[in-house]
Amino acid sequence: MKLDDLDTPALLLDLEAMERNLAKMAAFFAQGPTRLRPHYKNHKSPVLARRQIDAGAIGMTCATLSEAEALVSNGITDILLSTELAGEPKIRRFVDLARLGELKAIVDNAKGAAALGVEARARGQAPQVLVNINVGQNRTGITPGEPAAELAQRARAEGLNVHGLMGYEGHLGHLPDGPDKERAYGEAMRTLMDSRSLVEARGIPVEIVSAGGTGTYRLSSRFPQITESQAGSYLLMDTNYASTCTDFDKALTVLATVISKTGEERLVVDAGLKSISGELGMPVLKSRDGLHLRKLNAEHGVIDIVGPHASLDVGDRIEIWVQYSDATVNLHDCMYGIRNGKVEEVFTLHG
Amino acid sequence: MKLDDLDTPALLLDLEAMERNLAKMAAFFAQGPTRLRPHYKNHKSPVLARRQIDAGAIGMTCATLSEAEALVSNGITDILLSTELAGEPKIRRFVDLARLGELKAIVDNAKGAAALGVEARARGQAPQVLVNINVGQNRTGITPGEPAAELAQRARAEGLNVHGLMGYEGHLGHLPDGPDKERAYGEAMRTLMDSRSLVEARGIPVEIVSAGGTGTYRLSSRFPQITESQAGSYLLMDTNYASTCTDFDKALTVLATVISKTGEERLVVDAGLKSISGELGMPVLKSRDGLHLRKLNAEHGVIDIVGPHASLDVGDRIEIWVQYSDATVNLHDCMYGIRNGKVEEVFTLHG
Repeated sequence: MKLDDLDTPALLLDLEAMERNLAKMAAFFAQGPTRLRPHYKNHKSPVLARRQIDAGAIGMTCATLSEAEALVSNGITDILLSTELAGEPKIRRFVDLARLGELKAIVDNAKGAAALGVEARARGQAPQVLVNINVGQNRTGITPGEPAAELAQRARAEGLNVHGLMGYEGHLGHLPDGPDKERAYGEAMRTLMDSRSLVEARGIPVEIVSAGGTGTYRLSSRFPQITESQAGSYLLMDTNYASTCTDFDKALTVLATVISKTGEERLVVDAGLKSISGELGMPVLKSRDGLHLRKLNAEHGVIDIVGPHASLDVGDRIEIWVQYSDATVNLHDCMYGIRNGKVEEVFTLHG
Repeated sequence: MKLDDLDTPALLLDLEAMERNLAKMAAFFAQGPTRLRPHYKNHKSPVLARRQIDAGAIGMTCATLSEAEALVSNGITDILLSTELAGEPKIRRFVDLARLGELKAIVDNAKGAAALGVEARARGQAPQVLVNINVGQNRTGITPGEPAAELAQRARAEGLNVHGLMGYEGHLGHLPDGPDKERAYGEAMRTLMDSRSLVEARGIPVEIVSAGGTGTYRLSSRFPQITESQAGSYLLMDTNYASTCTDFDKALTVLATVISKTGEERLVVDAGLKSISGELGMPVLKSRDGLHLRKLNAEHGVIDIVGPHASLDVGDRIEIWVQYSDATVNLHDCMYGIRNGKVEEVFTLHG
């Protein structure tokens, strides 16, 4: 299928860049001891998840139950659900799903652990859980140290199968590489390891320690006690991550069509914030000197003509780098895999 | 169905507020001469579109071909597509669809008009078009005056059925009411009417003049030559519009569940920017003193506890006002119609 036959806006994946990213990260984690359990929320493609597993990943991390359900229905069943469960509907869905595979939930408070325990016991199950510890992101996660150990013990008393700990240092992922980042990372991980010791001191073996994202993946080798990394953004690489993490190649764009050119000041394309996210910053054009994407309306992208530029007119195509892959993938039903200017694969997105 | 049975995040529509908005806007346009052709992009529900038509709307305005296709397949066929068509795939889809109803496209440049004309002639059709004129928004739209009249003539020469003009004053919708807004509105509409005279002077009757949104609907009565208004946001009303347009009631929230509370500083809910848009600004909580929604991550909303507040814990529900309805509706597959605390209807969203 030719690229010209695609209607726009369309989400494009550069297959060669993606494959380089896949191989590079797989080679890093093949050294061990930490293994890779990449985040599914970044691409939402069961086919790409399977390729990550074929390249050595031990399973997937999911942000939502819908994502976990999509993976299970595609035969991928070793899953860490990295968002706390709350509310009866979700807890019921999780316990249902956990019968089908090696699902691991996280808990960061006694009330959540108790609610999960009640449902699980009523169904004769003992779901695997990790205790989520706040290592400095100040979002979710229980206070490290004794409160974390206490929660591990309570979760076990609720009949949950406490398998280990999660400590996601999301506040560090986008810092530039250097001593400041290394110091902050060391502090966060020592906090996690101290909690690990306290949990084990209560007779609860810690088999899993999950931490890390694309922005800190290399530092994980300094803490061999980290058993798995959640890094996921490396595969598609958006411009947001690429600004601080240069190890991987940007692979994701939105293809748009010029729909309006009424003078020499601007072009308007058919990709707006309903097809490319501006939540974390303005996306930029892939390779168009003299043009500047200034504004995203719902269905329009407004491009200022700011200097000498390749002549573009109504009907011509233009690619825009995805600035934030998680939120942009979420706006599409499929992603087109491109090689040598042709559509080689269509990845349907689920979850 | 009880609200408690809904899983979260869920998009909720207050049916009574929506019905008041529907009736109020219908009463305004029932006076004429301008009629209402509301924008579908705001709610994406064919059922709500049908209610707008039953209340007097003459048809619908759509932002995308997918939206128009969704309406046609639900039996609503009098549609203005308010975004220029470009590229073969879209032009082909439009000409296919135009056989099934009273579809109107817009053109703002000669190249686009020619491309549509070629395809239409090859299929033995003469699609209806409006000439889109830039009345000050500086996004799309041809220069008013002679360039607009010239384009109308060229479009007719291409075999297109030129029915009138569109001049969307989107730059004025969010200005506060008052003399400055009225003056700017008057200038924009006089520009449009001057172009209208020039088009008619070339022997092309102008049957349709489409202008206006929710933020300027009342001013349209000053220009009886405006035959139809595109106002659409009035139905669901988000907090973005409500800040300047107080005639309608906010009707749209996202229901979220508290998933984490690990101290007295914050709560975290399961609604992030994948379920409620922050593209135009941060949404606010519906009715929770002492709580402040500070941040949206992909799947997390972080709420700071800033003062005395109703006791909320893990598993409790909270509603967040939608800040930008277009982009938020786009993140959901359905919208739950609520009356007296119960789910009365489920609106599936299409397009």
